[in-house]
Amino acid sequence: MKYYGGIEAGGTKFVCAVSDENFEIVAETSIPTTTPEETLEHVFAFFDQYELVAMGVGSFGPIGIDPTKDTYGYVLATPKKGWAQYDFLGNLKEHYPGLPFAWTTDVNAAAYGEIKQGAAQGKNSCVYLTVGTGIGGGVVVNGEIFSGISHPEMGHIHVKRHPDDTFVGTCPYHNDCLEGLAAGPSLEGRTGIKGQDLPENHPIWDIQAYYIAQALMSYTLILAPEIIILGGGVMNQDHLLLKIRQQFVDQMNGYMETPEASEYIVRWGLPNKSGITGCLLLAADAAAKV
Amino acid sequence: MKYYGGIEAGGTKFVCAVSDENFEIVAETSIPTTTPEETLEHVFAFFDQYELVAMGVGSFGPIGIDPTKDTYGYVLATPKKGWAQYDFLGNLKEHYPGLPFAWTTDVNAAAYGEIKQGAAQGKNSCVYLTVGTGIGGGVVVNGEIFSGISHPEMGHIHVKRHPDDTFVGTCPYHNDCLEGLAAGPSLEGRTGIKGQDLPENHPIWDIQAYYIAQALMSYTLILAPEIIILGGGVMNQDHLLLKIRQQFVDQMNGYMETPEASEYIVRWGLPNKSGITGCLLLAADAAAKV
Repeated sequence: MKYYGGIEAGGTKFVCAVSDENFEIVAETSIPTTTPEETLEHVFAFFDQYELVAMGVGSFGPIGIDPTKDTYGYVLATPKKGWAQYDFLGNLKEHYPGLPFAWTTDVNAAAYGEIKQGAAQGKNSCVYLTVGTGIGGGVVVNGEIFSGISHPEMGHIHVKRHPDDTFVGTCPYHNDCLEGLAAGPSLEGRTGIKGQDLPENHPIWDIQAYYIAQALMSYTLILAPEIIILGGGVMNQDHLLLKIRQQFVDQMNGYMETPEASEYIVRWGLPNKSGITGCLLLAADAAAKV
Repeated sequence: MKYYGGIEAGGTKFVCAVSDENFEIVAETSIPTTTPEETLEHVFAFFDQYELVAMGVGSFGPIGIDPTKDTYGYVLATPKKGWAQYDFLGNLKEHYPGLPFAWTTDVNAAAYGEIKQGAAQGKNSCVYLTVGTGIGGGVVVNGEIFSGISHPEMGHIHVKRHPDDTFVGTCPYHNDCLEGLAAGPSLEGRTGIKGQDLPENHPIWDIQAYYIAQALMSYTLILAPEIIILGGGVMNQDHLLLKIRQQFVDQMNGYMETPEASEYIVRWGLPNKSGITGCLLLAADAAAKV
């Protein structure tokens, strides 16, 4: 039996898993993200117990993905202490010399997990958007993770303001970009109440749906994916998903033909597992390429 | 000698050209876009004089590009009289039975022309954006025209308002989307003066640069192309290009690493020829596929 390793490396925690070649998870652990050295010590202690044939890593970002650059495999300009300019992949490779690695963002891994085994199964392309502490997106095109000179950073596009919204925004780079106006902290920033404690009938949900739908419209007009998957804590709410679909239809105003909103904009098919599933699938791909 | 035919089909005029296999244009004509029947009569009269091996068509849109759908080859919901739901490609094929055709949007053809022979030569990916009566974009990824369930319609993304701008916008679908706030008609709509007659020091150029730069930032965060090419009448102004680059740098605020703005955001390398060049190149590709 072959074993694959997967690391969904988030800014808060690392989810590490080992699966067999049918992607059945045989061991899993969650490690708080502290310093790189301390975190990787726990990561190694976990994976050292297994004979792996490959490992897939989906990391919080931004990360270096250009193999021709020195920063390939690095975590780049993150505010997470100790991780900016850290050679994450290099340190993994040093500990597991010769092991094939796949390396992408956490959200790209999630998009890949969703298209192979989740809500986008059978499609050729998808956008995966997670709305939580931040907003991040991953893209699959022609069955493969999509990237250009960088991986997508689609949570930071600018949006048209909701007429009732005067909130300054929380993004340290852009203030009122999508993430600044619609990620979790913006809910608490406007109301003083944490997102999970806000009642369904609070007007802020209309504002948040307005921004998220607008971003989905931009992704659609630029990428025209077959399906859009929404994941993350904030999306675990039926009423919000319905509002987003309605806003999407209203804002698009028939300009580009897409599938019915209920089939085009859907919730993740692998709740809380999209990312780690994608990492394990990417590990298998890396093993197959050797 | 083999001859390729190219049609850059715009809403105002059709540019038709015949080239040899080295893409040297041997004949060219411009035909006003009137009714489909009348326009195509002139198109046929021109091309009937040549023995073509293939034809490339870059059409104004939106157009049907999904070969599995009945609307493949059609011009779709255009306000241009007589062209909505017109089977453009079907009528061309009927007149030239057996001839291999390439079929895409005018801006995709322009992006293809620019990456093969223009300002994006040597790159693997580019975004081509034209700012004129409307705003349209084409995308090349991995050397090929990029599309999903539709071709890109990236001129219609929403943008954050410039603080000094209260203009309602000119887009019949979305009012104040990018096209509604930054295409040629918005300049005249705000000032009563045609774009080409507005002085360089008019504050409206800062507003227009703000919106275009913002759109380029969105395209960068989503597609991360190697280069962005700006074409179209409005872009024939040095001062505007410089303003756009500066706004791009300011708005991105270092978030995603891109090449220097002067190398990343450039003017077309084939002025007024990007589209027809792309059509001829696509004709050659279509011939090679047979």
